[in-house]
Amino acid sequence: MEGKVTVRVSELLETAKGCMLREGVPEEEAEIIANSLVQADRRGVFSHGVVCLPRYAGLMRSGMMRTAESHEVTRRLGAVEVWDGKRSSGQVLGHRAMTRAMEMAKECGVGIVAVYHGNHFGAGAYYAILAQAQGMIGIAASTGSPTMAPWGGMDKCLGNNPVAVAVPARERGPVVLDMAQSVVAFGRVTNLKKQGIQEVPEGWCLDSRGKPTVKMDEVASVAPMAGYKGYGIAVMVDILSGILFGGATGARADDMQEGPGMIFAALNVEAFSDKDAFYGALDALVRQRRELLSHEGSKRVFADLPNRFLNR
Amino acid sequence: MEGKVTVRVSELLETAKGCMLREGVPEEEAEIIANSLVQADRRGVFSHGVVCLPRYAGLMRSGMMRTAESHEVTRRLGAVEVWDGKRSSGQVLGHRAMTRAMEMAKECGVGIVAVYHGNHFGAGAYYAILAQAQGMIGIAASTGSPTMAPWGGMDKCLGNNPVAVAVPARERGPVVLDMAQSVVAFGRVTNLKKQGIQEVPEGWCLDSRGKPTVKMDEVASVAPMAGYKGYGIAVMVDILSGILFGGATGARADDMQEGPGMIFAALNVEAFSDKDAFYGALDALVRQRRELLSHEGSKRVFADLPNRFLNR
Repeated sequence: MEGKVTVRVSELLETAKGCMLREGVPEEEAEIIANSLVQADRRGVFSHGVVCLPRYAGLMRSGMMRTAESHEVTRRLGAVEVWDGKRSSGQVLGHRAMTRAMEMAKECGVGIVAVYHGNHFGAGAYYAILAQAQGMIGIAASTGSPTMAPWGGMDKCLGNNPVAVAVPARERGPVVLDMAQSVVAFGRVTNLKKQGIQEVPEGWCLDSRGKPTVKMDEVASVAPMAGYKGYGIAVMVDILSGILFGGATGARADDMQEGPGMIFAALNVEAFSDKDAFYGALDALVRQRRELLSHEGSKRVFADLPNRFLNR
Repeated sequence: MEGKVTVRVSELLETAKGCMLREGVPEEEAEIIANSLVQADRRGVFSHGVVCLPRYAGLMRSGMMRTAESHEVTRRLGAVEVWDGKRSSGQVLGHRAMTRAMEMAKECGVGIVAVYHGNHFGAGAYYAILAQAQGMIGIAASTGSPTMAPWGGMDKCLGNNPVAVAVPARERGPVVLDMAQSVVAFGRVTNLKKQGIQEVPEGWCLDSRGKPTVKMDEVASVAPMAGYKGYGIAVMVDILSGILFGGATGARADDMQEGPGMIFAALNVEAFSDKDAFYGALDALVRQRRELLSHEGSKRVFADLPNRFLNR
């Protein structure tokens, strides 16, 4: 179905929250989930917006996404905590984990919370942005179900492993990067397929033998961005946001009992720099980029890394 | 000049060390520099090997790379230290900074040392590998002199901002990723030019108007890997390994008084996981990748991310 509809943010929030409440999600959790999804929609990342609600409802009914469940701290040392997420909502875990990471960063300059038995956390930017709102740099990453083949291979065994970073700024909004390690999200290919489109753009996909293909029927996996470099980064995310603390990767991230590994880090700007000096330098960087000439054919220099563009 | 020559590692180390000693570098520092450069050569990353010696000697004579100079800790909180590197050798600073980061990671699970007034540190993998040798995950990054234009723009103002990560493993060597955020290092283009080659491969370079070019004469900058994604990562490295703590970026990273910003982080595996569980899971990941079928035309599945391939 084509066309667009404009909705009040407050109404969309209420609706999303209502959907979750009807699944038996406690009020506080429903609010976090709704905020995360609506923020993604507002940023134009519709794949991680309220469109996720039916899927989440299904996961909750099947017991793969638990509500009113508390995580358990299974390891703690200095600026690091490891949690058993017990397959709670990824949004709820992420919100709590980043909040805890920021507490540790106040004392230690940096705080890291790693969560195994996690869940789909929507757009990673949501957690990173939580941190920047408190004057910290936030980093969030997650392993995911397999959508990519290893470089040189043909078996789909690697998630596209999103990483999000948000940096607080004063003159303009935060500088936010939120990206998967594949050329495009697999969901974009699925969407084209649903629309009956038979060809995918060149460079997006590989067939079951690991060869590039543009034929929708042959698509077996999405290609890593930048080839071996993107594959290399995806492997490191598998390790840093999974293997390191017992979080599942690839096919196991989809497993009923496992769920993805997730990691949240906060860097306390004041531990690294005089606050005014930091904001001065950052604002100057953004300003400089904005003032640079854009080349013919480009709309402008991308100074603020618009998420609409990057989160795909 | 074509051709190859095989040299004993011990002899190359002695020669490199001797070159530095002759510049008045203290023995301990000369050894660190020699080790870093020879390790890069052994890993096939010749651009960061002993070929750097004449350049370093020049920097030392001009006062842009200082010897027998101690860094100063200008900020300290929990697991974070910021150093004024006073433009010492990048290798010496990097070695000391990663050593200190590991000390903090023993107590706090994570340790970060950020260095402003840094210097060219050669291959970032050297510092990351230092950490993995102690059972930690090492991360090293640096800002650099401008070689890339911002996405959508045409002015070269961004370093290719290398990031290296090394993860300890038991069955095989460490898993190491060391990569710049450009499609290729600018040095590779310069090398082709020296050989009299008039065309650069498609996708490598942009002209002064920010448009793709294959003509050597028109080359103004190298393209970011994966387009806007690589540009986004390069911006984040500018911030995390520079702006955050007063380190210089872009053109200022080349400035006589400034030098690049550098950051070194160590993650203590034992803070995140039972050691045996971690090594078991990591070795299984590498083994799984090795056992996957490679596609026709590929030599093999890249399980261990060979640096020869990645560090370019």
